[in-house]
Amino acid sequence: MSNVKIVIAGPRGRMGREAVGLVMNTEEFELVAVLDHKNEGKLLSEIEGFHNCDVPIYSNIEACFQDVQVDVLIDLTTPEFGMHHARTALQYGVRPVVGTTGFSKDDLIELENLCQEKELGCIIAPNFALGAVLMMKFSQMAGKYFNHVEIIELHHDQKLDAPSGTAVKTAEMIAEVREKVEQGHPNEKETIDGARGANFEGMHIHSVRLPGLIAHQQVMFGSEGQTLTIRHDSYNRGSFMSGVKLAVDTVMKIDTFVYGLENIME
Amino acid sequence: MSNVKIVIAGPRGRMGREAVGLVMNTEEFELVAVLDHKNEGKLLSEIEGFHNCDVPIYSNIEACFQDVQVDVLIDLTTPEFGMHHARTALQYGVRPVVGTTGFSKDDLIELENLCQEKELGCIIAPNFALGAVLMMKFSQMAGKYFNHVEIIELHHDQKLDAPSGTAVKTAEMIAEVREKVEQGHPNEKETIDGARGANFEGMHIHSVRLPGLIAHQQVMFGSEGQTLTIRHDSYNRGSFMSGVKLAVDTVMKIDTFVYGLENIME
Amino acid sequence: MSNVKIVIAGPRGRMGREAVGLVMNTEEFELVAVLDHKNEGKLLSEIEGFHNCDVPIYSNIEACFQDVQVDVLIDLTTPEFGMHHARTALQYGVRPVVGTTGFSKDDLIELENLCQEKELGCIIAPNFALGAVLMMKFSQMAGKYFNHVEIIELHHDQKLDAPSGTAVKTAEMIAEVREKVEQGHPNEKETIDGARGANFEGMHIHSVRLPGLIAHQQVMFGSEGQTLTIRHDSYNRGSFMSGVKLAVDTVMKIDTFVYGLENIME
Amino acid sequence: MSNVKIVIAGPRGRMGREAVGLVMNTEEFELVAVLDHKNEGKLLSEIEGFHNCDVPIYSNIEACFQDVQVDVLIDLTTPEFGMHHARTALQYGVRPVVGTTGFSKDDLIELENLCQEKELGCIIAPNFALGAVLMMKFSQMAGKYFNHVEIIELHHDQKLDAPSGTAVKTAEMIAEVREKVEQGHPNEKETIDGARGANFEGMHIHSVRLPGLIAHQQVMFGSEGQTLTIRHDSYNRGSFMSGVKLAVDTVMKIDTFVYGLENIME
Repeated sequence: MSNVKIVIAGPRGRMGREAVGLVMNTEEFELVAVLDHKNEGKLLSEIEGFHNCDVPIYSNIEACFQDVQVDVLIDLTTPEFGMHHARTALQYGVRPVVGTTGFSKDDLIELENLCQEKELGCIIAPNFALGAVLMMKFSQMAGKYFNHVEIIELHHDQKLDAPSGTAVKTAEMIAEVREKVEQGHPNEKETIDGARGANFEGMHIHSVRLPGLIAHQQVMFGSEGQTLTIRHDSYNRGSFMSGVKLAVDTVMKIDTFVYGLENIME
Repeated sequence: MSNVKIVIAGPRGRMGREAVGLVMNTEEFELVAVLDHKNEGKLLSEIEGFHNCDVPIYSNIEACFQDVQVDVLIDLTTPEFGMHHARTALQYGVRPVVGTTGFSKDDLIELENLCQEKELGCIIAPNFALGAVLMMKFSQMAGKYFNHVEIIELHHDQKLDAPSGTAVKTAEMIAEVREKVEQGHPNEKETIDGARGANFEGMHIHSVRLPGLIAHQQVMFGSEGQTLTIRHDSYNRGSFMSGVKLAVDTVMKIDTFVYGLENIME
Repeated sequence: MSNVKIVIAGPRGRMGREAVGLVMNTEEFELVAVLDHKNEGKLLSEIEGFHNCDVPIYSNIEACFQDVQVDVLIDLTTPEFGMHHARTALQYGVRPVVGTTGFSKDDLIELENLCQEKELGCIIAPNFALGAVLMMKFSQMAGKYFNHVEIIELHHDQKLDAPSGTAVKTAEMIAEVREKVEQGHPNEKETIDGARGANFEGMHIHSVRLPGLIAHQQVMFGSEGQTLTIRHDSYNRGSFMSGVKLAVDTVMKIDTFVYGLENIME
Repeated sequence: MSNVKIVIAGPRGRMGREAVGLVMNTEEFELVAVLDHKNEGKLLSEIEGFHNCDVPIYSNIEACFQDVQVDVLIDLTTPEFGMHHARTALQYGVRPVVGTTGFSKDDLIELENLCQEKELGCIIAPNFALGAVLMMKFSQMAGKYFNHVEIIELHHDQKLDAPSGTAVKTAEMIAEVREKVEQGHPNEKETIDGARGANFEGMHIHSVRLPGLIAHQQVMFGSEGQTLTIRHDSYNRGSFMSGVKLAVDTVMKIDTFVYGLENIME
């Protein structure tokens, strides 16, 4: 089997750099070009930190697809660019793997229709960390059998928002299947405000912030005599690469549109 | 909808007592008799600890099914009795829920055939703790995507065998799907024997024993930059009852043979 | 060395029953009488659940100390009785070990003076669980070196108050030594109220409530590149007995007043 | 109060680089020179990664102390250089803070005598991570009251030795105070070799190795009805810097020899 020929959009971003490394170090993958709004016409190897990457840099996606034979586009840019890139890729017969969030419903419908018309796979993944995706998937499955659940998410103390987006996403996924109950004792009382955390449809979410921590989440289910806990610890950005690899491998085998890695993991 | 009419075999055992309590306290369930090799002809309410349970005690299962109209038999006895009870129940049109391990392959095939012939559901559950069943199921699912896994099981120090049966069962389930790797550094060295735990097909299992502990298991998966942990804590026998309830509810709706609660949990 | 002769006040309470068992099963301890406002003149062995305990029951503490030679009084009653019992014991040359909270400052000063006058040991212990006492002591010690700390306490969902008394006590002990900082990012924002928990002098406390849980507390400290976590899990009331034993052993060796087991643990 | 004038030996090593950053970023500290066997006569700012550090590089320690006024030497080199540097520093009236292991008993005695003679502080610290030092200290304290303990240490799978040095050191420290018992059930049986981990004087040590993990250790104590757990998670080398800072602050206040940060933490 020949190698998967890959273009990466956004190679100089933090995710993009990791993705370049992944593609360069994976035997069955081949980096054939990159898309970057800067450095048009140079080789990637001329940019700091990318020696050995002798592939051309394009700022125009159509020019890129006209010049180079491509199987998969890995897009790690922004929602607006991501949508433009994904649409163009499908029109040129290239399968997109897009790691950005923030697409509108209309965007998703348009891409789904394009996939069907072109009979090509396309994967949009708001989260590439396989462990985090499985944590959410398992939490939703457990939510069918345990309707008492509390989420503890723990992050470094430079994080601004509480609860984290992943915690809210997890709670939403559980809420889709969980028989709703108001948790805790009906007469429970906070002697200091906030002790019982954030209340999301009766579930409670607790946000811990400490220097030293990175990004962690623990989902706890309880019923008589037992607790079940699902925890993900993310230590660095390398955690996303196994998800990118799975997405590229999968997008080559499917001819449909997929939103979320949880839908390609059985 | 009328109540589910239930017979419990083994009402005086530790699991049996909990099951009697469960059936008595569940609105849509109705205890109609118990099977016990002792106390034939008495009422269960005459036995210590069962006041209010005015149901007859039978030592002969056929006599029981001839006298009483029964929907479900919950069997919490031993493998030999369990097999006899399940077979007889199916012949009388009663759906068995059996909580014993140790059935032979031939037994399982016989029961499966009987279910098909009689068009009746039958559930054999080696483990009724829903949390433990989900822990094993999720571990197997994660094992497809993470081939590095270590199991830590923690029990009170009166436990004789290490690793626990659940830990070995979990490792077996993961081994069915996991791409086999020998974990740890190829040159790793134990400076004290046993430090790296038990080796099961390249996975490592660690058995912690301490007074105070009850029954806990933690399955850890790792890949670059992340770990995923699934943990079950069992604090008392009450943890089994949610599984018994699920099995009874389900056995009334199916007309096939099921081995293991993981197969009725989606 | 002869045995320590012990009287237990409050033998029928939950703690009292455990204490009777402890004293009966400890070789160097000897139960010589019990104090109970009921059952005066009977033997303890005549009360349900205490067969083999052939010791007299007194409802009058002075009568007890006049009749019986006693080294130590273990008091597991209420604050008002506890104070009366401790005072009387010291006057009769008996060393009190009292497991109740709620003494006033004046009570404590009176007992301290009595100890000095009589040259007798006396130990008042609001918490007998050695693990919990060490968790609080270690947390205070760590608070000198780490000024970022969050407390997560986890209890069954029948608990009414949040945070737990132990969590607040722990935070108070840390606050005595910790350089005060307002934790978290100065601009952090709760998108759902309560996410960041209860704020106690800049530290955050999170109260998790789930069926199945018993009584657990985790104190987490963070600084650049590291976290330190101290956790206590209490599974049942048996956890108090090692503290009662330590207190009895220690009270025989000291001739001063001690409040809190942390002060007899080095 | 004037600033503490500091020389760092080994500035290009991984720890050394962090230490240069610490000293540069601490208001009351002042970097006055560095010791390096290379680059004699240059400024540190001429070396890659150290712009803004306009301090001279010396390869000869005596020349350094003759030219520059120094309060504290932070040595992050090797045992042989460390000993030479510490001895010379004390002779020149400079207080050493040495972060290397592997000193002989004779070395330690010589340094202790020199400290006494010169009335100068000197701190040798095998481990600068305050959290790890406290974990070991607390474990030893708990070992007096709990004689059942198991250690679980978890590291990335590139680590060669099991158990880790820190785990063995922790077990040794506990063994100094713990009443020795052979843990686990007397008749316990490993059905797979190694399940119960490494046996160190009756305590058990379990070494978990997974990609993704960094450096973690959990010490668990159990007694009836309770467990106490002390855990340290080290995420990166920055964890050492709070210990270096504490050592420099302390060495300026003492006139004795100290081995191990645990001895300057109350």
